[in-house]
Amino acid sequence: MSIKIGILGYGNLGRGVECAVKQNPDMELVAVFTRREPETVSILTKEAKVCKVSEVEGWKGKIDVMVLCGGSATDLPEQTPKYAQCFNVVDSFDTHARIPEHFANVDAAAKANGTVGIISVGWDPGMFSLSRMYANAILPEGKDYTFWGKGVSQGHSDAIRRIKGVKNAKQYTIPVEGALESVRAGENPELATRQKHTRECFVVLEDGADGAKVEEEIKTMPNYFADYDTTVHFISEEELQKEHSGIPHGGFVIRSGKTGWGQEHSHVIEYSLKLDSNPEFTASVIVAYARAAYRLAKEGQSGCKTVFDIAPAYLSMESGEELRKNLL
Amino acid sequence: MSIKIGILGYGNLGRGVECAVKQNPDMELVAVFTRREPETVSILTKEAKVCKVSEVEGWKGKIDVMVLCGGSATDLPEQTPKYAQCFNVVDSFDTHARIPEHFANVDAAAKANGTVGIISVGWDPGMFSLSRMYANAILPEGKDYTFWGKGVSQGHSDAIRRIKGVKNAKQYTIPVEGALESVRAGENPELATRQKHTRECFVVLEDGADGAKVEEEIKTMPNYFADYDTTVHFISEEELQKEHSGIPHGGFVIRSGKTGWGQEHSHVIEYSLKLDSNPEFTASVIVAYARAAYRLAKEGQSGCKTVFDIAPAYLSMESGEELRKNLL
Repeated sequence: MSIKIGILGYGNLGRGVECAVKQNPDMELVAVFTRREPETVSILTKEAKVCKVSEVEGWKGKIDVMVLCGGSATDLPEQTPKYAQCFNVVDSFDTHARIPEHFANVDAAAKANGTVGIISVGWDPGMFSLSRMYANAILPEGKDYTFWGKGVSQGHSDAIRRIKGVKNAKQYTIPVEGALESVRAGENPELATRQKHTRECFVVLEDGADGAKVEEEIKTMPNYFADYDTTVHFISEEELQKEHSGIPHGGFVIRSGKTGWGQEHSHVIEYSLKLDSNPEFTASVIVAYARAAYRLAKEGQSGCKTVFDIAPAYLSMESGEELRKNLL
Repeated sequence: MSIKIGILGYGNLGRGVECAVKQNPDMELVAVFTRREPETVSILTKEAKVCKVSEVEGWKGKIDVMVLCGGSATDLPEQTPKYAQCFNVVDSFDTHARIPEHFANVDAAAKANGTVGIISVGWDPGMFSLSRMYANAILPEGKDYTFWGKGVSQGHSDAIRRIKGVKNAKQYTIPVEGALESVRAGENPELATRQKHTRECFVVLEDGADGAKVEEEIKTMPNYFADYDTTVHFISEEELQKEHSGIPHGGFVIRSGKTGWGQEHSHVIEYSLKLDSNPEFTASVIVAYARAAYRLAKEGQSGCKTVFDIAPAYLSMESGEELRKNLL
């Protein structure tokens, strides 16, 4: 009896979930729900159906876990509480400031309907949050650092594309090597925004656009670029497609802390990711937590959970005995 | 109402637990139990008592969690099931091959007496195991690597000290940088023992001992050194005390895996530790899990648990709301 997975929203993340389900023999994808016309959406899994989002409620009881692959800005705040009324759900809600509110909404809906909703799953929030939490619990006296990259920031790339005269653009967030080294050495540096990351932009101009003006506009853009050392490269559309079509990302979570009666010993805990495909990795984390959602619901639990609330063993295909024998 | 901690066994690990308890304001150390004469044992915590191990049963009900700081070879296999009859217990049992048997013994004792026993807590087994488990659940198709060091191996240092003509010795396990780099690059190398770690030994000879003979004996010692590239340095007792008296350790757990419909994307997950004091860090992990043992027992749970069975939030002083707000 495999775990029946549904995917709601079939963009990069939804396709990533589809691929991840294929790698997990205890699961099967049964349906993909889309806002587009189902005939126009071609999926990879032969055995799964493509359906309209409006039909989703008819699948109640036929899907064990619905993976919600919408965006955090407007989709998930509405979708996760809504679909938690019918299904166990997992989402990747990543607007850090609004997590408490989202948690409360999903918790109310899930408890009222006896379902499990796991929110904010992925790598940040997600695996990075876990790393921070474990490291804080182990070393209560210490300092946390998170560095992102090298990787593509979709939000920053979009911001550049909105500038007049820009045809296309890709932005990489890059951690400053010297800052990383100082943190790893346990020096506990105080780092300003500019000292932690640089931003590198590959920009395709529209015909006749003023490169100097575009560059100035990027570099002075508040919030996105003004506080960073930013490099702008103008390249052709062809080069952009050839060299910058991937969606790599990654980063580092480091906690440096002290132990000993007089705090005489230093320790550095580091967790890092180097990802060829940000959405596929996020999807792989989500699918492991979909297994947990299924199992928690089978146990009769309900309500909203985060990665902090779920014992690691729930994520694994292996039994407790196998885990203790092979991985402990 | 703070969590009342007892320590059984007051060596390096026991002292580390004492220091860690001091860093956690929701806990207090109430007693240390020793096989030595209590008058001869001087502890750092003024408020705590030093007692004979034989008195420990009289403390039933006065200690929330007993931290067992004995050795894995002979102490813990006997002690953990025994003291789980009276107390919630945490140990750092690290004989990987005997974990299933130890788990069964502790589980039976804990269930029969309504206590919680958490075994094999520390960094390996412990945090490294967690890293392996999470990474395996996320990337089911991939390969695991664990490197240890640079750090002092107590077992290897002891093995050298048993050689005739050796007065004192310290052995460092060192990961091979090129192997680490290859793994990080996602090359999935097949690595023989010799290709993963080297061993560096600092040896103090007895007066008149034959250095060449000792060196030969070290380098050819089966299991400990024969399969490694080993370097031997002869130094004075004074230099050993000055330069090599610390107990640093650490290591790297890396999983490299593939995602995508055709496994076209690579990912590398890395967890690493750089520790000034192996026993103090191990103790810090144990103390976080002592908090979990206390909470699980309060909930009415009983039996043996490992790091795989415990939701991360149980380790933290912060509430669920605080964790979601500050660390997710």
